[in-house]
Amino acid sequence: MIIKHIRDIPIDPMDVATDTDIQWLISPVDGEEKIGVRRFIIRAGGSIPPHRHKELYHIQYVIKGRYKVGAGEKEYDVEPGSVIYIPPREVHWYRNESNEDVEFLCIIPLDVDGSTEVVEED
Amino acid sequence: MIIKHIRDIPIDPMDVATDTDIQWLISPVDGEEKIGVRRFIIRAGGSIPPHRHKELYHIQYVIKGRYKVGAGEKEYDVEPGSVIYIPPREVHWYRNESNEDVEFLCIIPLDVDGSTEVVEED
Repeated sequence: MIIKHIRDIPIDPMDVATDTDIQWLISPVDGEEKIGVRRFIIRAGGSIPPHRHKELYHIQYVIKGRYKVGAGEKEYDVEPGSVIYIPPREVHWYRNESNEDVEFLCIIPLDVDGSTEVVEED
Repeated sequence: MIIKHIRDIPIDPMDVATDTDIQWLISPVDGEEKIGVRRFIIRAGGSIPPHRHKELYHIQYVIKGRYKVGAGEKEYDVEPGSVIYIPPREVHWYRNESNEDVEFLCIIPLDVDGSTEVVEED
């Protein structure tokens, strides 16, 4: 059994994104090879630009704050308790236009090709 | 893409447990065959008795409240932000001795044998 707390887990700025941190809660380091769990913090005004992954999908759960999730060609408002599934190859992005930090969990399979492509904005 | 909210997802009493509800946030119904995500509510005084699963492991994230998670032969205090990994075959249980409901997410692989055995207490 592993038990730990977010206050003791390293958290790092996310490459490519703006004012966004990523924290790996469960990763292969924990001996778990098939499922990864990350916690994202997008600070007020922060964003993650449009991108897509080859075989990787995301299951997300919003813990705190209100922000916009884009997927395909639409944007959706999410809030605590929102559940989001983003399938492989779908372009997606995030924008926190609020005055508060937002926080969500993002669950991914680790046994697929997670190659990432940032999509140029027009 | 799928987007939904916990307020719109069915939630059911959990068999075997006391004062505990289970809500499947992501299940095979969503087209996701490898990872399931459930939300548990254990109400004040509620509990889930000792049990183990054949190949199933749990990755859990505490959203709300303070309670006790037992695994193996020990009990641990958890709180919002706690991350728990319970490996296959390890006996585990939960007790909410507080005066408030607790809430946690439980992520499981769906492509393994999840047979469950409730362990008789002495």
